[in-house]
Amino acid sequence: MNKEVSPGFFGRLMTWGGLWRDIADKVSGADDLDNLNPDLPEDDARKIRAGMDDCLASRGGEVSARARAATLGRAYLSLNDQGRARFLEMLAREYATDHDRVRDTAAALMSVDSEDFTALQAAEGQMRDALVPPRLRLLKQFNALPRGIKFLVDMRAELKRLARENPALRGLERDMRDLLASWFDIGFLELQRITWNSPAAFLEKIITYEAVHEIRSWADLKDRLDHDRRLYAFVHPNMPEEPLIFVEVALVHGIAGNVHDLLDMSAPALDPEDADTAIFYSISNAQEGLAGISFGNFLIKQVVERLSHSFPKVTTFSTLSPIPGFRTWLDHRLAEGEPGLLLPAERKVLTQLSETGGDEGDSTGTPSGTKGQFKALIADPEWPNHEPVANALKTPLTRLCARYLVNERRPPRVEGRPATVLDPVAHFHLTNGARVERLNWLGNRSSKGLAQSAGLMVNYLYKLNEIEKNHEAYQGQGKVPTSTAIRSLART
Amino acid sequence: MNKEVSPGFFGRLMTWGGLWRDIADKVSGADDLDNLNPDLPEDDARKIRAGMDDCLASRGGEVSARARAATLGRAYLSLNDQGRARFLEMLAREYATDHDRVRDTAAALMSVDSEDFTALQAAEGQMRDALVPPRLRLLKQFNALPRGIKFLVDMRAELKRLARENPALRGLERDMRDLLASWFDIGFLELQRITWNSPAAFLEKIITYEAVHEIRSWADLKDRLDHDRRLYAFVHPNMPEEPLIFVEVALVHGIAGNVHDLLDMSAPALDPEDADTAIFYSISNAQEGLAGISFGNFLIKQVVERLSHSFPKVTTFSTLSPIPGFRTWLDHRLAEGEPGLLLPAERKVLTQLSETGGDEGDSTGTPSGTKGQFKALIADPEWPNHEPVANALKTPLTRLCARYLVNERRPPRVEGRPATVLDPVAHFHLTNGARVERLNWLGNRSSKGLAQSAGLMVNYLYKLNEIEKNHEAYQGQGKVPTSTAIRSLART
Amino acid sequence: MNKEVSPGFFGRLMTWGGLWRDIADKVSGADDLDNLNPDLPEDDARKIRAGMDDCLASRGGEVSARARAATLGRAYLSLNDQGRARFLEMLAREYATDHDRVRDTAAALMSVDSEDFTALQAAEGQMRDALVPPRLRLLKQFNALPRGIKFLVDMRAELKRLARENPALRGLERDMRDLLASWFDIGFLELQRITWNSPAAFLEKIITYEAVHEIRSWADLKDRLDHDRRLYAFVHPNMPEEPLIFVEVALVHGIAGNVHDLLDMSAPALDPEDADTAIFYSISNAQEGLAGISFGNFLIKQVVERLSHSFPKVTTFSTLSPIPGFRTWLDHRLAEGEPGLLLPAERKVLTQLSETGGDEGDSTGTPSGTKGQFKALIADPEWPNHEPVANALKTPLTRLCARYLVNERRPPRVEGRPATVLDPVAHFHLTNGARVERLNWLGNRSSKGLAQSAGLMVNYLYKLNEIEKNHEAYQGQGKVPTSTAIRSLART
Amino acid sequence: MNKEVSPGFFGRLMTWGGLWRDIADKVSGADDLDNLNPDLPEDDARKIRAGMDDCLASRGGEVSARARAATLGRAYLSLNDQGRARFLEMLAREYATDHDRVRDTAAALMSVDSEDFTALQAAEGQMRDALVPPRLRLLKQFNALPRGIKFLVDMRAELKRLARENPALRGLERDMRDLLASWFDIGFLELQRITWNSPAAFLEKIITYEAVHEIRSWADLKDRLDHDRRLYAFVHPNMPEEPLIFVEVALVHGIAGNVHDLLDMSAPALDPEDADTAIFYSISNAQEGLAGISFGNFLIKQVVERLSHSFPKVTTFSTLSPIPGFRTWLDHRLAEGEPGLLLPAERKVLTQLSETGGDEGDSTGTPSGTKGQFKALIADPEWPNHEPVANALKTPLTRLCARYLVNERRPPRVEGRPATVLDPVAHFHLTNGARVERLNWLGNRSSKGLAQSAGLMVNYLYKLNEIEKNHEAYQGQGKVPTSTAIRSLART
Repeated sequence: MNKEVSPGFFGRLMTWGGLWRDIADKVSGADDLDNLNPDLPEDDARKIRAGMDDCLASRGGEVSARARAATLGRAYLSLNDQGRARFLEMLAREYATDHDRVRDTAAALMSVDSEDFTALQAAEGQMRDALVPPRLRLLKQFNALPRGIKFLVDMRAELKRLARENPALRGLERDMRDLLASWFDIGFLELQRITWNSPAAFLEKIITYEAVHEIRSWADLKDRLDHDRRLYAFVHPNMPEEPLIFVEVALVHGIAGNVHDLLDMSAPALDPEDADTAIFYSISNAQEGLAGISFGNFLIKQVVERLSHSFPKVTTFSTLSPIPGFRTWLDHRLAEGEPGLLLPAERKVLTQLSETGGDEGDSTGTPSGTKGQFKALIADPEWPNHEPVANALKTPLTRLCARYLVNERRPPRVEGRPATVLDPVAHFHLTNGARVERLNWLGNRSSKGLAQSAGLMVNYLYKLNEIEKNHEAYQGQGKVPTSTAIRSLART
Repeated sequence: MNKEVSPGFFGRLMTWGGLWRDIADKVSGADDLDNLNPDLPEDDARKIRAGMDDCLASRGGEVSARARAATLGRAYLSLNDQGRARFLEMLAREYATDHDRVRDTAAALMSVDSEDFTALQAAEGQMRDALVPPRLRLLKQFNALPRGIKFLVDMRAELKRLARENPALRGLERDMRDLLASWFDIGFLELQRITWNSPAAFLEKIITYEAVHEIRSWADLKDRLDHDRRLYAFVHPNMPEEPLIFVEVALVHGIAGNVHDLLDMSAPALDPEDADTAIFYSISNAQEGLAGISFGNFLIKQVVERLSHSFPKVTTFSTLSPIPGFRTWLDHRLAEGEPGLLLPAERKVLTQLSETGGDEGDSTGTPSGTKGQFKALIADPEWPNHEPVANALKTPLTRLCARYLVNERRPPRVEGRPATVLDPVAHFHLTNGARVERLNWLGNRSSKGLAQSAGLMVNYLYKLNEIEKNHEAYQGQGKVPTSTAIRSLART
Repeated sequence: MNKEVSPGFFGRLMTWGGLWRDIADKVSGADDLDNLNPDLPEDDARKIRAGMDDCLASRGGEVSARARAATLGRAYLSLNDQGRARFLEMLAREYATDHDRVRDTAAALMSVDSEDFTALQAAEGQMRDALVPPRLRLLKQFNALPRGIKFLVDMRAELKRLARENPALRGLERDMRDLLASWFDIGFLELQRITWNSPAAFLEKIITYEAVHEIRSWADLKDRLDHDRRLYAFVHPNMPEEPLIFVEVALVHGIAGNVHDLLDMSAPALDPEDADTAIFYSISNAQEGLAGISFGNFLIKQVVERLSHSFPKVTTFSTLSPIPGFRTWLDHRLAEGEPGLLLPAERKVLTQLSETGGDEGDSTGTPSGTKGQFKALIADPEWPNHEPVANALKTPLTRLCARYLVNERRPPRVEGRPATVLDPVAHFHLTNGARVERLNWLGNRSSKGLAQSAGLMVNYLYKLNEIEKNHEAYQGQGKVPTSTAIRSLART
Repeated sequence: MNKEVSPGFFGRLMTWGGLWRDIADKVSGADDLDNLNPDLPEDDARKIRAGMDDCLASRGGEVSARARAATLGRAYLSLNDQGRARFLEMLAREYATDHDRVRDTAAALMSVDSEDFTALQAAEGQMRDALVPPRLRLLKQFNALPRGIKFLVDMRAELKRLARENPALRGLERDMRDLLASWFDIGFLELQRITWNSPAAFLEKIITYEAVHEIRSWADLKDRLDHDRRLYAFVHPNMPEEPLIFVEVALVHGIAGNVHDLLDMSAPALDPEDADTAIFYSISNAQEGLAGISFGNFLIKQVVERLSHSFPKVTTFSTLSPIPGFRTWLDHRLAEGEPGLLLPAERKVLTQLSETGGDEGDSTGTPSGTKGQFKALIADPEWPNHEPVANALKTPLTRLCARYLVNERRPPRVEGRPATVLDPVAHFHLTNGARVERLNWLGNRSSKGLAQSAGLMVNYLYKLNEIEKNHEAYQGQGKVPTSTAIRSLART
């Protein structure tokens, strides 16, 4: 049915109720917030401000304050984009830390005798209090809304979008991140196996949130939940109807190198009892509002542990991963005309190709000419279907990709740490303690796969007893653990 | 069976497992923590310290750090009282806030141009970071233990006990309180109705934690779960096997004034459909480790709301409460010999009593003599069984109790607020927005009831549409809302 | 994935296990049944027979017999159509009632003194035993299979299909029906509300089993589970993953007359709190193997009761039903040339229509000509789009449909009862105590709707306080309860 | 609280409701059944009869009939013992099989041509129908009551009690047994592990129903649910709040021979991971109304299978069982003065005992004198505490007990089968395929243990791969499988 309001909003209103409604009906000023102009013009903004002030003053007691916060939350949901931006800006600007109080407290702290620990602790306590912005208390009070924590997660998603343009919102955005990082502590999350017997509403979200290999239909999803597959998600007990992050796994023989085989709905299902390898072929974060709060490392390792117990014959745990930054990096190298980018033998093959091929105009054989030709070849999305072209490209692309994954770096994110690899997916798995295991030629021929990584895919291998060592090597010294084959490739 | 270790500990070890154990077996140094001397002598303390340092350095990655924290937690559980005290003191002293860094940051903050908000915010951010003690990160990592949050709650209970003697632990204790207050936010708690169909293990905890009217047997408990009774508890989704706080309610006709009738196992059960009143006759906090984090206000109001929906005929919501501080206060007044404590008419009755009674030596009729006599009478635990004595005491005791509840004050806990009432239970319900409704003569004849409040009990009435007003009157202006009858009594 | 075997079968093998497998591995002869030729040639049939004999002899004890029966069931599932037909025929022929024993027992019974009740009862007991065919014990033993009761339901579905051609199977089919009728007693069934949060595997079955208005997609299904809709199913606790029967309900204003409006996915959802009417617009039996065991009557009334409690404002309960036999009946009437089928006024309108319309060749105006024209008009599936034609047809079709529903009869199914109405859906609702309420012109313009009932739909109204009376009127005296409007229509 | 009605009844009334109540309020005659005299005098019996007749006529339709049956069931529950007896007798006498119809049908059957299978089948079908007593349909209709199946189980328990005195009720009792045997088919039952986390209401029933070793308190129960214990129950999905049968298991080292050690609440709990043996030390049937419907064999084997999977090191499965009939048998032998009952060596020891002991008057040394002495010794419940006496008794009692268990027989229950052993517990386990493994001297010193079996207990051993063979040996040829030791003992 044609919903005029988003289902999320409607759903929330439907379950809105119980105590908060009853009390909210009685808290003074609640009616004022019921029929706001969605743009939140100044008159209505004033009502919001009055409500926020009452919340902070706990007028009528703590229960009333929560009920009032719920009313404010409901009001927020009734606003449009502009109204919400105004609401958030008010929260950000008018309920921020009191800079003067912080300065005064700092001055007091400076004046304490540095040997008097009791006085120091007291002063530090006052500083801690002074640094808590009032808006943080308001945010916590929103937790009283039905599905309040999801409300906050969604509010942060909107805030992140708005904060890109509006620096005034960034402090509020950071407050929310810190609050949510504490509330979504990994110790609270539950690892759930998702199956074809899971609620359809939950599975629908899996379809929506899948970010690596699009789920094309319910039949496709059912196939990914077949008995030789596993799908695991982290769920927070207070928002059980939402995945936070999920991973899709195939139980197979040997390390898989081709995503099309895995996603082929007409392929026969294997008996998982015979499998020796678990392939993690898709990991998706589901909540934009939890960006920057990392679950993937824990998810992978808990799933490895679960599978080890269920399938003792499965001893190899590997990903089949995209290489999202390879083509961008390569295109820059080609554009720059980096000398020696292609090896002489590679250039030779390309030259021969253009000589035998009839339609290549530029066949001067000069290095820059070869590069141009190389660039032109991979720009044509049909290249994998021309066997001679594909053959000519295989060696240089694979070699350059190994170099890209292993050797190309960006400055460290944390000062004092070694430089990290350029590719974000590689960085994620290396930080987790995996190693770069194998490159797979034409592992992903989809247009996305060709555009991102010239059709290449990579396996990251998780060996439980090397994870710590690998992590320390990468995180501590910037060394990228690899298989022997990858090491050779990257060296050339 | 004769358990050498407490069931809690054993149970934890039993479920200890899964990922953390597998990884913990692989993290370096884990074995070192396996067989510590329970006293934690310095040699072993060094191993603990090394583990803590590794946790904070996230050696081997974040998953390893959590696994190592779990190992530390397990080590903590294997210690005796002395060992635990040492463990906690190490955590408190060696992983506290770095005072020097705080001072340096304060100095930096002072030097920022007070108009440069961006710089101010950055400096404040640095101060916020500087103020976070490393031990706080360690505490969060303990959340990875199986039932980790219960581990932290119990650790705080031990810490509170130790901190009474050892001021060095107070900062750590405050850190834990703040962390738990955030994690036990009311928005996360679930209101559960507890019935005779609840797990026996849960009901066993209700028996243990009941703090107001002892549950004498499983039969007594079953009686309190009969169909004219309700028992509700708040539960946190990550420690579902533990009540946080619970309230016991009787569905009756008219406001109950006598707790013996309510607890009488031989009394017939009423049809709850006919009831017009809900009596909250017992509220107990179950977790010592959550002391100072308040749930009662929310619990009462959510239960009121639930009952209103289930039993539309129930329109009166009242407690039947103890008055824990009355006798102590009264005894002081009597000891001080406050003039005019007893009214002339009351003195007269007492005098007559001693004249007719043969065994009272002192019958001079002087005021102080009457007070002495008064004091002697209520000191005899058998007085309620002597009708003339009871009759003589009824008027003065009831009147003085009303005065005690309504007029006697202590200084405000928060500066700037009005003085609060002396009685802690009265303070709790008045803060919630209830009013003092009725005093019940001999409502509790148990030895505890006589010792605390000379057998008197009081009803606090919750009227939903007066709660905000009552709260503001008490919290804002220090006025105690009462029924007309109590007001008259307290005035005389 | 391309399953070579049906998912049902595969799923069963997957969960096949536990005790039965362990014991089955040990029961003698179990291996013999593992790799049968799917056609079940005589050699393999002999092994089946040996297994059945062992089951009936309880060789190795009752647990072994059940394990062996499970092995037989697994063997049955491995057969193809021909093999299954042979398996069932063996069961039907070789494990039937022993006719000679029955005759002997009858003779013995006849010889008992008719006043000797004890002897009579004993003889009757012997007769009861003699009449139990051995195959019935075997059928019950199959219940030990994992999901054994679903196995039996599916076996009966196959048996019903085969018994149409093969009379030798009918006795076995009746045994199964009686067994299943007892095991699926209405008292065991659970009424479940199905929502978008139900397991996808269950919802997939709803899509498959919907028999009235096809569910075209998962989006269509989600729409039918929106908050102004309800879908209820009966489920047996021992096959919880399967609906037995389900009904789809729309909460609306006033009695709905048009199924397209109800199924329109772009129509806005209503607030169910405002509805005054519940429309039952689809009822589907889901298990072919339970044919002849009636649940619909109970389902409708339990749903009425549930809705009455949840939505006190809903006071009208009505179906929107197809009229599957109307066109067939009408075509026969037209073919027979029943005199007076069309009223003079109706004929006149049709004649005028043919005169104004240019393309009608036959315009003689004779009665039989009008009928021919009438027939030709409704034979064209486009007629509802020609307004003059539709206008001309409305009166005669509606009137004849009322006559068809109310007056046309077939002989009673049970001797001594009055004749029943011709239309099967009408018979179902009238037996349930509903009345014929309203005919809806062009309520279903789909090709199925036009082919079955010339686009007409009917509402059957369930008034709780008239149900008994209506049932007795129809069942006892053959009277069809109707609204006044339908009564007038049917009379003309 | 002092309930005037039993909790079961009250509980049922509490949940009585939903559809049946609403419809029951509308079915004619329902009010008549609301306030019956509990004695059921004839006037009220007439109302019951009218209700039953309406049920059988399905007046108002099948749903009304069920609602009316529910009303009848409620009426039955409101009767006292005398009223219930009258109700059941009416059901037994007035709704029995119609003997005349049976005779007529038998006559018709006899007249059918014995080669005409179709006609034979039809005649047999008529006979089947004729043999179904109308009361059976009524019983099934009671299944519509809330918890209807428990209602029927309890009704059968009452019926069994009454039928002992009243033969007229036996036919009805058999009808109920057959119906319940079909509805409680083993394929429907669910094996549940019961733990300290199970509902207290369920555990309370375990305490009540335990029939072998009384559960003395909730603490005793908790001890039997400790982590080195298991308690499993069969539950029917339509009466999930009731165990049907349950077994208590201890995980230990070696076969346990002493029940006091198992039940000692102060004994330390073992680590179940180290156990090699599972001891089934108590099996109790919980529902008197299901007497004669056997679950124990299935329960034991399913539990064996579960434990095998959970604890691979556990390879021995044995009972520790009472020998309920030993003393009774022995006392008869002693009373009869069976020659050679005691062996010469045994007599000698007894004679020596009486010579050394001072207080034995009769010391003639004659055989009969020894027997008398023997009898006198074991009649004194203190004998196990007198070491010389106990030593003297050990050899003869153990030997005679082996003889009793292995050699003493009663006539077969089913004609054509071999004689069965005398002891009912032995018969149960031997039928299940266990063997007699070991006798345990003073395995049960309780007064019950001494009275039943002179303190002896026995182990029956379940070896999965011998079960079929053992069963066939016992059931087919009457051979009792034993250990070598028992065989030797029994032979002497």
